[in-house]
Amino acid sequence: MNYNEKSLELHRQKRGKLEVVSTVPLDSREDLSVAYTPGVAAACLAIAKDPQCAQELTIKGHMVAVVTDGSAVLGLGNIGALAGLPVMEGKAILFKKFAGIDAFPICLNTQNVDEIVETVKRIAPGFGGINLEDIAAPACFEVERRLIEELDIPVMHDDQHGTAVVVLAGLLNALKVVEKKMEDVFVVISGAGAGGMGIAHLLFEAGLKHVVMLDSKGIIASGREGMNIYKEELAARINPEGRTGTLADALQGADVFIGVSQPNLVTRQMVQTMAAKAIIFALANPIPEIMPEEALAGGALVVATGRSDFPNQVNNVLAFPGIFKGVLEGGLKKITPKMRVAAAHALAQMVTHPTPEKIMPSPFDEGVAETVAQAVKAAM
Amino acid sequence: MNYNEKSLELHRQKRGKLEVVSTVPLDSREDLSVAYTPGVAAACLAIAKDPQCAQELTIKGHMVAVVTDGSAVLGLGNIGALAGLPVMEGKAILFKKFAGIDAFPICLNTQNVDEIVETVKRIAPGFGGINLEDIAAPACFEVERRLIEELDIPVMHDDQHGTAVVVLAGLLNALKVVEKKMEDVFVVISGAGAGGMGIAHLLFEAGLKHVVMLDSKGIIASGREGMNIYKEELAARINPEGRTGTLADALQGADVFIGVSQPNLVTRQMVQTMAAKAIIFALANPIPEIMPEEALAGGALVVATGRSDFPNQVNNVLAFPGIFKGVLEGGLKKITPKMRVAAAHALAQMVTHPTPEKIMPSPFDEGVAETVAQAVKAAM
Repeated sequence: MNYNEKSLELHRQKRGKLEVVSTVPLDSREDLSVAYTPGVAAACLAIAKDPQCAQELTIKGHMVAVVTDGSAVLGLGNIGALAGLPVMEGKAILFKKFAGIDAFPICLNTQNVDEIVETVKRIAPGFGGINLEDIAAPACFEVERRLIEELDIPVMHDDQHGTAVVVLAGLLNALKVVEKKMEDVFVVISGAGAGGMGIAHLLFEAGLKHVVMLDSKGIIASGREGMNIYKEELAARINPEGRTGTLADALQGADVFIGVSQPNLVTRQMVQTMAAKAIIFALANPIPEIMPEEALAGGALVVATGRSDFPNQVNNVLAFPGIFKGVLEGGLKKITPKMRVAAAHALAQMVTHPTPEKIMPSPFDEGVAETVAQAVKAAM
Repeated sequence: MNYNEKSLELHRQKRGKLEVVSTVPLDSREDLSVAYTPGVAAACLAIAKDPQCAQELTIKGHMVAVVTDGSAVLGLGNIGALAGLPVMEGKAILFKKFAGIDAFPICLNTQNVDEIVETVKRIAPGFGGINLEDIAAPACFEVERRLIEELDIPVMHDDQHGTAVVVLAGLLNALKVVEKKMEDVFVVISGAGAGGMGIAHLLFEAGLKHVVMLDSKGIIASGREGMNIYKEELAARINPEGRTGTLADALQGADVFIGVSQPNLVTRQMVQTMAAKAIIFALANPIPEIMPEEALAGGALVVATGRSDFPNQVNNVLAFPGIFKGVLEGGLKKITPKMRVAAAHALAQMVTHPTPEKIMPSPFDEGVAETVAQAVKAAM
């Protein structure tokens, strides 16, 4: 595919991908007097008297900041905030396209947790929500936790939670296809960065009981050396028996593999050791942990990837626009795990008859963001 | 006038005044693959390799941050950044309307100089320029100076410099009308905040030799008690003789009065003591230092105000869109006094036959921003 060349050409031709346009007329002195001085003073004074008025008199009620420090951009690593700007612009226009929410990219010239938190808090007045993006683990966990605590607007790190919502939606439908139950299945998650952590926590919230998680050193277990506090906490919760071992060990008898890790980690032979009717989410991008044809040849029944050129694309554009639409419309201050589980169920239910090749709605289906938004509001 | 009611109604109906829209198609999976992942990685990698590429591949080359701390919003005082948002939104859409430049409001939850500087530096990567707005004196002077020094993109505090450019443009034409020369006239400036300071410095740059400046305590003179360092510096430069006294004292024999201060400070009788064919810029808004009919009755020949309902409106929308257009298009890193003087001359020359009631172009005249931008680029 020549997406890269086409994309470079498009970016160059358009000089980025978004513009800021007026929604009010500015064609006469009268227009200026109403939209700007002296008339605008009335809006300012109304907000000075009651800050809540900003929700209806300004962009605040429908504007999300897409914030990055550029430390983990796509799969490209720590390329810095400026180099991440094309992704943030893309994210911003997806908000508008899929949910009618305005969003603006903010690229931070710092990768220090305290400074990121401080800076986002200082620019927060003009925004209704904060979408954290492409911030590396483990810094992303503390940044998100502190911003959620310290701001009175919704904050979500999409790499953790957007992906998790879509994975859960897909898993709910995949389990219908293979006729297994969430509380019975054994799930192996490969990758303990932002995505893996978000998925593990959300699946637990959704009723999953049996799971192991692996990082590059093997199964995460309490007391293993060199683990950060987030892995320690999770290990105590999901792996109380203290299982250890490699990915090949973990996959024996497993019902589900979820990879948010590295290309080509899983072989056909490893899939053959999994339980019957195995489910594979091989989400490393652009090269998955195992190619779909190999996974199917190894006996898997449902295979999802992050790619648009295979069936069952796990695409977080299914989740984040609707989630923010829901909290902004509902005037909700936090995005809770309960809301995310509700969003996943709503997404799953958009596929009326799940099949091995159709466990996900398409982002272009009618009403995806609206459906998610309604579920989020109902779950508050 | 009921601009206030109309304005409140407009803000409520539109929920603010701007939106962020895509400039690229997003109607198919193919579109997403080009605008977003996986194609977008090519733009990211190009910028990671050569940050200069961001100018042509992202919004950076045409995006200005309109930054406020809300400490001096319009004439409303320190109402805070959130209450200033309607003004910043207005400013942003004026950039787009009059110069085709994109701009986005950033409202800061701090009024500390160090924190403002630090925060703007941290969010700067995604912007091509910084328009500081409605930050109170004297903090605004240090904030601007430090950001100009420490950032590699153009920074301008519009309350100082935008107004000054338009005042200089008007004064150039007013002097033609009264047939006096810049180097001969005696100018009295009332108001030593951001606007007054910007005007004094720019007029000096443009060749003015005789000027006194007053704050609420009278003429600014070296050694007067309670002056900040900015007033001290200016006093040493513009008032080496150490003149003292009141506004009435200062106006005796003066050729030009420029007020950026308080309503009704100047009387008809005071104008009568000025030199023949006096020029009055009474820019306090919405109530000027003296109403035009009173100034004319006192013998003034040319009167300008900040209002759209009198002739000769001093409106900084004549200046800032074109100035930023010039530096962004020219890839210029600083906005220099020389550029601002050039911008003022270009604006003045747009009025081919200045008269007492027509010393300013209209913002709606064809090519205002383009003319200013060309002058700025030529002056670098």
